[in-house]
Amino acid sequence: MKDLNFYNLARNNIQSLHAYIAKEIPCKIKLDANESPYCPIPLKSIFSKEDLFSTLNRYPDPEAKELKKAIAKDLRITPESILLGNGSDEIINCLITTFGGPVLHPIPTFVMYAIASQALGQSHMAIPLDSAFDLDIESILKSIKKIKPKLIFLSSPNNPTGNCFSSEKIFKIIDTSKNIVIIDEAYQPFSSQKGFLPLLKDYHNIAILRTFSKIGLAAIRTGFLIGHEDLIKEVNKTRLPYNINAISQAIAIEGIKNKKIINSHIKVIIKERKRLYGELSNLKGVQPFPSEANFILFKVSDAELVYKKLIEYGVLLRNLNTIVKDALRVTIGTPEENNIFIQSLKLTLDSINS
Amino acid sequence: MKDLNFYNLARNNIQSLHAYIAKEIPCKIKLDANESPYCPIPLKSIFSKEDLFSTLNRYPDPEAKELKKAIAKDLRITPESILLGNGSDEIINCLITTFGGPVLHPIPTFVMYAIASQALGQSHMAIPLDSAFDLDIESILKSIKKIKPKLIFLSSPNNPTGNCFSSEKIFKIIDTSKNIVIIDEAYQPFSSQKGFLPLLKDYHNIAILRTFSKIGLAAIRTGFLIGHEDLIKEVNKTRLPYNINAISQAIAIEGIKNKKIINSHIKVIIKERKRLYGELSNLKGVQPFPSEANFILFKVSDAELVYKKLIEYGVLLRNLNTIVKDALRVTIGTPEENNIFIQSLKLTLDSINS
Repeated sequence: MKDLNFYNLARNNIQSLHAYIAKEIPCKIKLDANESPYCPIPLKSIFSKEDLFSTLNRYPDPEAKELKKAIAKDLRITPESILLGNGSDEIINCLITTFGGPVLHPIPTFVMYAIASQALGQSHMAIPLDSAFDLDIESILKSIKKIKPKLIFLSSPNNPTGNCFSSEKIFKIIDTSKNIVIIDEAYQPFSSQKGFLPLLKDYHNIAILRTFSKIGLAAIRTGFLIGHEDLIKEVNKTRLPYNINAISQAIAIEGIKNKKIINSHIKVIIKERKRLYGELSNLKGVQPFPSEANFILFKVSDAELVYKKLIEYGVLLRNLNTIVKDALRVTIGTPEENNIFIQSLKLTLDSINS
Repeated sequence: MKDLNFYNLARNNIQSLHAYIAKEIPCKIKLDANESPYCPIPLKSIFSKEDLFSTLNRYPDPEAKELKKAIAKDLRITPESILLGNGSDEIINCLITTFGGPVLHPIPTFVMYAIASQALGQSHMAIPLDSAFDLDIESILKSIKKIKPKLIFLSSPNNPTGNCFSSEKIFKIIDTSKNIVIIDEAYQPFSSQKGFLPLLKDYHNIAILRTFSKIGLAAIRTGFLIGHEDLIKEVNKTRLPYNINAISQAIAIEGIKNKKIINSHIKVIIKERKRLYGELSNLKGVQPFPSEANFILFKVSDAELVYKKLIEYGVLLRNLNTIVKDALRVTIGTPEENNIFIQSLKLTLDSINS
């Protein structure tokens, strides 16, 4: 019998790392995870895939050729400029594994840039956003010159703040960096900012992250990186060979086929976001921030209490109080869900103020 | 316009790394990838999952609680001693990310131990098997003392050789190592060797890799590690939070429910392996090696030519000539597939010898 101390045995960077805990709290209305409230794929098109489901004994296509072909056609790019991941999370891991650190990103932003950097033992620098949640361009440019980051991650629209970063500032960063800038466009479909895809031809040091997760297919865990074919080739060396399972490949292809449905859902979500923003603005003591994503960040006094009270009403938001003081994040749901959220929030505020 | 040399920008260990290429060669009879020839899950139990397929917009359970509960019940272990991966590949990556190198493994063996070590920038040592494809215990023990490997990977039954390593030798390694020994039991269900699961109680420095891939569910990419709860806790820090997608979780649970069907398939495969071994032994110029897995390694003069001729007959094997001289590996198929393979091999040998 040997008793190992696994904590001590782990690398130093792992010892101080905390597992990402995605709490699951029972609720009627789930507005915490920036999912779409709509599933874009009709059951019948899933259940017509007898060939797929009767050959579960076979490995998936390791290159996911059909899916890459479908994405390439949809976005008018080459399949060779696409790298698929088990969610964007895996691609972030692959990028850092391939190029190493230092990694630079603003804060607050998507947490996986920092977690992946630490897990992989690479240094990372987090530069606070300015008071308008935009990039603090002077600090960033200074840091680029000082630490020469191998990778810069810019999520635009940014999670959890919801805003797009100023294009001008992003361009300054791209121009200043001698290395790679990743634009994470997970929420781009909900944004009025056009996205950086058309710029790939002119800027070889940028690459773009996209995902199926926010537009109605979070269950299948499929994200992708678009970049220069030589960049994709290097990152592909660190990709696990069969990383996208057979069913995710098939369903993602269905997603592209059902693009019209997805786009109609996006329209509803944008419309609801506008309505919800208005409703929140009209509530006393509530300060919503403009959003280009499928969620709204808002401040409220005693965010912890409001968060808990809303759970009692069956409405689950994301409590961001420890990241942005007094802030909660609400994902845009169906009109019905949003109504219940607003009603519940009103009752909550009334009960607190009375 | 900036032109980056991405190859030069990649870390040194990545520059010399080759992407794992899983060639796809069209064939009628696919005996190259150690898949089961049988799918164990009836279509109707997939198509009854309307709830799952109508909520593809929702993220999977990040903890895969139901699946872990099902595995735990099946194997009489605790859910806390299980770590799930997007295939064993991902778990190997997580282990090396968590504990770092040096990594030690025999050679030839499953290639991902070496690939993952290199991709993650960790040193690894490959110690050749002896002439009977068993562990060269003296060299291994010497290396353990010298380089103090953080992780030792032992695949038993071993891929591509098919044999189990001597239990006595494995125990010597476990007793000598001050760190962690991973027993990869991907092929254990086909083996007469009992497996190391019952020893977990007494040996805290071992952990066991299992997978759904070889027993009929390669499409869903689900493997798991079983080990001391403290070990799992550390490795879990490097696991991507939503790494097992919702559909894989549901289908893996179905797999456990259909264990009787899986076991009946395993029986057929073991019986066919025995028959095929006899048939191959009777062929002049063919030297099969005894197997405890769902494949047989065999030597044949001019393996390259035999491999190519078999493809002309529509039968695809794995060409291992560059790894084990003159060797091909055939996965056990259905009785009909195996018959066609043997017929085609006979015709091939006749045509070469005439």
